[in-house]
Amino acid sequence: MKALMQEFPLTLELVLERCRSVGTRTEVVSVGPAGPDRRTWSEVGERAVRIAGVLDALGVARGGRVATFAWNSHRHVELFLGVPAAGRVVHGVNVRLSDEEILYQVRHAADDVLFVDASLTGRLAPLRDGLAVRDVVVMEDGSPVHPAFARCPLYEDLLGSVCPPVRRFVPEPDDAAWICYTSGTTGHPKGVVASHQAAVLHSMSSMTVDSHAISRQDVLLAITPLFHVNAWGLPYTAAMAGTKLVLPGREVSGAALGALIESERVTVAAAVPTVWIDLLADGHDLSSLRRVLCGGAPAPRTLLDEVARRGLVFCKGWGMTEMLPSGTMQHLTPDTDLDSPGAAVTMVGRPTPGVQLRLVGAEGAELPWDGVAVGELQSRGPWVVRAYLDPEDDSNTSRFDRGWLRTGDLARIAPDGTVELVDRTKDVIKSGGEWISSLALEQALSAHPLVAEAAVVGVPDPYWGERPAAAIVATAGGTPPSTEELLAWLGTRVPKWWLPEQIVPVRCLPRTGVGKYDKKVLRTQLAGA
Amino acid sequence: MKALMQEFPLTLELVLERCRSVGTRTEVVSVGPAGPDRRTWSEVGERAVRIAGVLDALGVARGGRVATFAWNSHRHVELFLGVPAAGRVVHGVNVRLSDEEILYQVRHAADDVLFVDASLTGRLAPLRDGLAVRDVVVMEDGSPVHPAFARCPLYEDLLGSVCPPVRRFVPEPDDAAWICYTSGTTGHPKGVVASHQAAVLHSMSSMTVDSHAISRQDVLLAITPLFHVNAWGLPYTAAMAGTKLVLPGREVSGAALGALIESERVTVAAAVPTVWIDLLADGHDLSSLRRVLCGGAPAPRTLLDEVARRGLVFCKGWGMTEMLPSGTMQHLTPDTDLDSPGAAVTMVGRPTPGVQLRLVGAEGAELPWDGVAVGELQSRGPWVVRAYLDPEDDSNTSRFDRGWLRTGDLARIAPDGTVELVDRTKDVIKSGGEWISSLALEQALSAHPLVAEAAVVGVPDPYWGERPAAAIVATAGGTPPSTEELLAWLGTRVPKWWLPEQIVPVRCLPRTGVGKYDKKVLRTQLAGA
Repeated sequence: MKALMQEFPLTLELVLERCRSVGTRTEVVSVGPAGPDRRTWSEVGERAVRIAGVLDALGVARGGRVATFAWNSHRHVELFLGVPAAGRVVHGVNVRLSDEEILYQVRHAADDVLFVDASLTGRLAPLRDGLAVRDVVVMEDGSPVHPAFARCPLYEDLLGSVCPPVRRFVPEPDDAAWICYTSGTTGHPKGVVASHQAAVLHSMSSMTVDSHAISRQDVLLAITPLFHVNAWGLPYTAAMAGTKLVLPGREVSGAALGALIESERVTVAAAVPTVWIDLLADGHDLSSLRRVLCGGAPAPRTLLDEVARRGLVFCKGWGMTEMLPSGTMQHLTPDTDLDSPGAAVTMVGRPTPGVQLRLVGAEGAELPWDGVAVGELQSRGPWVVRAYLDPEDDSNTSRFDRGWLRTGDLARIAPDGTVELVDRTKDVIKSGGEWISSLALEQALSAHPLVAEAAVVGVPDPYWGERPAAAIVATAGGTPPSTEELLAWLGTRVPKWWLPEQIVPVRCLPRTGVGKYDKKVLRTQLAGA
Repeated sequence: MKALMQEFPLTLELVLERCRSVGTRTEVVSVGPAGPDRRTWSEVGERAVRIAGVLDALGVARGGRVATFAWNSHRHVELFLGVPAAGRVVHGVNVRLSDEEILYQVRHAADDVLFVDASLTGRLAPLRDGLAVRDVVVMEDGSPVHPAFARCPLYEDLLGSVCPPVRRFVPEPDDAAWICYTSGTTGHPKGVVASHQAAVLHSMSSMTVDSHAISRQDVLLAITPLFHVNAWGLPYTAAMAGTKLVLPGREVSGAALGALIESERVTVAAAVPTVWIDLLADGHDLSSLRRVLCGGAPAPRTLLDEVARRGLVFCKGWGMTEMLPSGTMQHLTPDTDLDSPGAAVTMVGRPTPGVQLRLVGAEGAELPWDGVAVGELQSRGPWVVRAYLDPEDDSNTSRFDRGWLRTGDLARIAPDGTVELVDRTKDVIKSGGEWISSLALEQALSAHPLVAEAAVVGVPDPYWGERPAAAIVATAGGTPPSTEELLAWLGTRVPKWWLPEQIVPVRCLPRTGVGKYDKKVLRTQLAGA
């Protein structure tokens, strides 16, 4: 027996319609070289609707790809809303990638056109001839346009020339809405394609109390760039909730962000741990802040302490591009005992409503949620992908398991569903048939008062197979502790056979484009040491 | 271009799986004649899964209808989860209906079997022979079973006899999950059929901060019966969020509910205004309470004052069975100025994310959201129906307008999306070509210190077409004010031509099965007065 519900496709048109209709009184504030730009969500929505006409004018077909090369601004948000709502696919290119990676992604995604911030035309100029797109549109942000792009059409001109009503391709729920490439720590970057329905449901889940809890009462600062999994989906969530959204542009120093929080009375902001560390060290008035959204990498204990000291809620999420990205969430309140096992850095909370998790052991058997068994975390859900963009990608076989995504994370799950990350499957060190958690070693090393950061990898060993090797960065202005001292420190904190073969002080750790430790590089460095 | 997301049908199996997996530590507490029953959400989920086997044993086919006649208990919640997850349809019959209405509904819904609380077998006994079902199953709640049902199978016996794994029909997102009949103030009750996907999305929306904000941190008391639009969908929401759920059984006096809030440390409860008035007048310790969920009828100002005095948030919703029921939500905090126009009793907040609204004028044109124009409120969304159960129902034409539900409410919408209810289209009084709001007159009369309640209807008038007539109930122990006094009172509060032709003191107002004023009955009474 079928129910008789209305036909109501879950697409980003719903989100666009929502911000236009209920967003007459809430602002989108964008910081740029020309100063802050303020407009209502309704205005942003009206402009996003006109992008359909711009794409028609540019001759982008239904399903065509539109690359962006931009900082977080209202223009970038307009593209993230308007391109999919117009039946095309938006692809945010990470502006911090190498020349080669940028050219690869634009070609691989088969982008038809590219929208670039004026302030980023200089970065793109050397690649101009290699960019495999038909048109480049320059978005005026108050910066001069590099001469290489001087003849390109301007975003405001195109938007202004469109006479609504515009011709539109109506998207379907399973149509592609956006493409984002994974950071590629395991090999070449892989294209993740999100559907409209997945994007809508993911946004709705981010409005739930136990997840990101984004509400109309909030003022949300989206520090995480749009080219990082659509700023964790938060611009769509803000559009749907009618939340005031603050977009920092390129200025993401602690001082710039602190000033923005102070002036816009931001209540919640999203960033990776390193950004939060800089931000909280800044002297601005952050008294409007209520919640810290943090993900992308494990948050050090010192950050948790500082957040608690300020009376804020720390929202610690786990996820990945393949999950758009929300997978789990834990809220640490100022009342949480940070020394309790449940609040450990490795604990990432329960699955976001809608996401299903399971643990799978080395032999492929499902493991119990007993807080003891360690297996690979696998996920299913309405916003989890089942394959990558490239049908030829080997990962389409290796990263999926009978309908589940293999997340590549080793974890335990407690009986109440709380997930504890043990390591990345590719980072875990297999030594004499046993597992050594690089993550646990890194945390134990970082806990030393003279160590700011630590990264641990496995290096080949003729007898054990692999043995751990560590690189450490000393705290600012300090001297790195000796290997003997660190081994003694670790001796009381990890099993004896986990002690690293080498502990090398370095000035800085190699990182990927999204700020994670680049363990491929480190492994080569330490194996050769 | 299609996205490559996982196949993940949104059905109540997802909710069932969720409460089983993450509900090992949160309770479902049911009050019954035998005292409180405590079990975890996981246990409730495990039992719900076994219902598939029970229905197989009873020979209920895929899509078959399962009626319930029960108070709010874990058994009733198990049926609301387990029956749809097993590919059948659950139909909660309102236990307060007349004999005739009960028999009509069970026959009209083509219910195959009926599950009845032992404590309600006495109520059903006179109807035993007329009940058009193949089997009746008795749910033991500690009360004696009426002899008319002495030979019926018992719920626990059936549940205990099922050996998992059970054979199962896997539901699809657009399969019917539950049937609920409207209260029928406009004619015979109409069957509303909810799909699985609609139920899941509605639950997710109830977890969002700006809607019901149900979280795992809450303790939720579901006072609204399951046979009233599935207790507003809150049991599904609680199952999904892993929220401790308290079910009061048949004892819903202010004192019984107060005691339950005190003992279970309830943080949020859902009920109609009259129940809240009784509850807050009770002397129990309600200090655990944080939010008051209220709907079904306009809340009187005295209730809002009392909620604010206690420092609670008043969540004022508007909706209807055809919307499962969530349509809009407004949160009044203790800081809200209840004298401000935005906090008026008639204001019901903004559309719940996912729901779209429009205003349509008498000529069928869409009206602006300017806070002035009055039109019929129409709605669309993933949890709004497009037709009633009965394909022959005239309402399938009259209540829908090109893909939108005609809600039958007259309203204004402010530019920021805030909805103000003006009246029911069927209750509004058409006098000399102008509209008089029965709702506004009722509120003005109720505001008089000696008036507890007031209901206003239109009565036929040879010259004006219709004129307003009022019935009032005096405050407890008080004398009703004279008609002259009330007309003087109204004179400063409503336009002169709105003044009622008659104001009749009555002992109590006629009400429908769900507690709304029965204006059909009142119209007859006052027209004949």
